[in-house]
Amino acid sequence: MLVEIKIPENIGFVARVMKNLGFKNLCLYKCNIDEKSYITASHAKDVLDKAIFLNSLKDFHSFLSKCNFVVGTTGVVGKDEKYLRKPTFAPEELRIFGKTAILFGREDFGLLNNELEICHAVVTIPTDEEYPIMNVSHAAAIVLYEMKKKLRFQKEETTEEMATARDLEVILKNIEEMLEETWYPKHRFRKTIVTFRRVFGRSMLTKREALTINGVFRKTGKYIKKLKQKRF
Amino acid sequence: MLVEIKIPENIGFVARVMKNLGFKNLCLYKCNIDEKSYITASHAKDVLDKAIFLNSLKDFHSFLSKCNFVVGTTGVVGKDEKYLRKPTFAPEELRIFGKTAILFGREDFGLLNNELEICHAVVTIPTDEEYPIMNVSHAAAIVLYEMKKKLRFQKEETTEEMATARDLEVILKNIEEMLEETWYPKHRFRKTIVTFRRVFGRSMLTKREALTINGVFRKTGKYIKKLKQKRF
Repeated sequence: MLVEIKIPENIGFVARVMKNLGFKNLCLYKCNIDEKSYITASHAKDVLDKAIFLNSLKDFHSFLSKCNFVVGTTGVVGKDEKYLRKPTFAPEELRIFGKTAILFGREDFGLLNNELEICHAVVTIPTDEEYPIMNVSHAAAIVLYEMKKKLRFQKEETTEEMATARDLEVILKNIEEMLEETWYPKHRFRKTIVTFRRVFGRSMLTKREALTINGVFRKTGKYIKKLKQKRF
Repeated sequence: MLVEIKIPENIGFVARVMKNLGFKNLCLYKCNIDEKSYITASHAKDVLDKAIFLNSLKDFHSFLSKCNFVVGTTGVVGKDEKYLRKPTFAPEELRIFGKTAILFGREDFGLLNNELEICHAVVTIPTDEEYPIMNVSHAAAIVLYEMKKKLRFQKEETTEEMATARDLEVILKNIEEMLEETWYPKHRFRKTIVTFRRVFGRSMLTKREALTINGVFRKTGKYIKKLKQKRF
């Protein structure tokens, strides 16, 4: 998925690189394509033609909630809000599964914090310090090549149904509600939830496991609530 | 090294990707750059400024003869002259050492047979069958990324001096001269020499080893010659 990519040529180049490496589902969030995109796409015009356009935050979230794994990409790891970018993986360290979305951000600012926050894993290309800013299509070439390699060697996926991002968000909501019943400091909530999102997100949860885990947090939260009601 | 790349933007993109991944020595054989190259190079203008231009076949051979390892890249593996492209390695299977030159060929025809013939190894990116033709800058991104990974993990290079392509050619000449003294069929010479070039080329020969090997072929050739002179 490309997020607010402004240069139409870049979108076409990404489409071409996708098709070169056997990927076909391009999703464009707040992006516009034009004839220049079709020129750089070359023989990957079909990828552009079949691209899904998302234009509202609501559609963006709705699309991702149906994915099994959401991967953000980031360039230089910023100093602020570090926890949003940690741990960062190199492309070859990633394993994709189910329906995976890979987000590439704006040419200038990359992905925003609120976009990184909802990702299950963050990937960065270890570039040279002297000039770390890659063109999005070259970054995509490297990330997709590594993913493709993994897919080639990956075993048949289990037939068990995988948890979706939405299933995971339900767990996270229950964790938060549980924490709210405790002394857990409010200011650490956001960071803690991101940690859980990342850990569960990359763990290839099945629906069945998600249900079990969810039950743990939901029931614990309820139990604490009841205890407190009894006591006071 | 870029060989007869015709689109100036592609040369700039390659320069950028090189700098992104920590490579700086661009060599251009029969290529022209212009202001469009500088636009796509973005902050890698210095790579273009310092590029080495080679314009004659003589300069091309002279430059490569000083390298320790010469790698050709190829797209779809053609049916003709198959031995020139076999064995083909995926980028991650390559190990670079000493002064390595990586050749990327023309947008339309890639590298010509006589260019592939002098390479010590041939690399290809396993692309999707439906659209296997990559833009040269995206191919370079993938190949250079894999090489960079290897360099990161590679042990300190031995302090021993490595054989150059020229040293290897001396060996090959002696193999050929030796074969000429034997019943070895003439029509298989070229193919056999390419095989030796590939095998020795990727074996990280030291100068010392090259001397030893060279001695074996040279002396054997001479010995056969002498024997034949005695006999007849």
